[in-house]
Amino acid sequence: MKTYRKELWFNTKTRRAYINITDEVQGAIDQSGIKEGLCLVNAMHISASVYINDDEGGLLKDYDDWLEKLAPHEPNSQYRHNDTGEDNADAHLKRQVMGREVAAAVTKGKLDFGPWEQIFYGEFDGRRRKRVLIKIIGE
Amino acid sequence: MKTYRKELWFNTKTRRAYINITDEVQGAIDQSGIKEGLCLVNAMHISASVYINDDEGGLLKDYDDWLEKLAPHEPNSQYRHNDTGEDNADAHLKRQVMGREVAAAVTKGKLDFGPWEQIFYGEFDGRRRKRVLIKIIGE
Amino acid sequence: MKTYRKELWFNTKTRRAYINITDEVQGAIDQSGIKEGLCLVNAMHISASVYINDDEGGLLKDYDDWLEKLAPHEPNSQYRHNDTGEDNADAHLKRQVMGREVAAAVTKGKLDFGPWEQIFYGEFDGRRRKRVLIKIIGE
Repeated sequence: MKTYRKELWFNTKTRRAYINITDEVQGAIDQSGIKEGLCLVNAMHISASVYINDDEGGLLKDYDDWLEKLAPHEPNSQYRHNDTGEDNADAHLKRQVMGREVAAAVTKGKLDFGPWEQIFYGEFDGRRRKRVLIKIIGE
Repeated sequence: MKTYRKELWFNTKTRRAYINITDEVQGAIDQSGIKEGLCLVNAMHISASVYINDDEGGLLKDYDDWLEKLAPHEPNSQYRHNDTGEDNADAHLKRQVMGREVAAAVTKGKLDFGPWEQIFYGEFDGRRRKRVLIKIIGE
Repeated sequence: MKTYRKELWFNTKTRRAYINITDEVQGAIDQSGIKEGLCLVNAMHISASVYINDDEGGLLKDYDDWLEKLAPHEPNSQYRHNDTGEDNADAHLKRQVMGREVAAAVTKGKLDFGPWEQIFYGEFDGRRRKRVLIKIIGE
């Protein structure tokens, strides 16, 4: 059994952002030499997500609007987490809707994906350096 | 280490549907010959889910009503994704609540489940052929 | 390849509870002797979650309030699942928002985590004995 580990770093200019990282994940699989196995991709921060969906601008806008409706940023005072001096309680909630991680199958050295699957980093409290972990196991 | 891969195909008659696929997944584990490991089951389409919960008709109705409340199908015009000519933006949102995938433990050749765990395919934009991927690794 | 399996048991005094189980999961990794691999941690019951987020009291309150807003416990009569005599339909919904499971990377024998990641058992229908499964694969 082989394992491979890689980190991706981000520092978004906006509080919220949605970044397609599919090529970076496939690149890590290539580097790993693993042909058959599983690839875990997870946010290492608790106010961000890794998820799989479509790379379509309208949909990214829909996600952003919908998450803001389900867990609004303002007013800050509605969240007890923000009593600690933070202003990112909403980001911790949004991340739970979108999820922390994806596990993807690796088959013949490739992400074993349907036609529209793309891996995204979802940032809900950006403007600082944050990381994603890629861990691949297989052979 | 062994790996095994199988696809399940669906073509639901209704836009939304909830289908118990536990027996198909256990069947794939049987075919794989893997006794100890992990079994990934994921939707290969981005407007569908694989999730684990109860096979009880009332609950399936509750999920359906609740998802429709969190991310209503109508009016189509509320979603920017639908400006592309699609009418399934809501399905992409519903799928995020229910999740893309499950990872299940395989122990002594069986799905290592609690008493009520059942694996479901959740369809949110059906009436066409769509797939689920089963990937098992272990030995 | 090695595998390791362990169950954690809970019996919360309250209907809903959020319990940090990070040390127990790391303890299982230690016992397994696995240095590189993946660690699956999942609720074995369908009205509970395992998720990763911050161990901060204000945030736990925010999660609890938010989940109650998204899927209120009362009135019981709003849920068809409760027609079966249950009163926990809301718990099945809350669990879908927070998720069933986490898959964590194991690197050099440790949970490969960012600075604030903590694993939680989220109970939404407690006051009875319920289980979490830890399954580790690797070498």
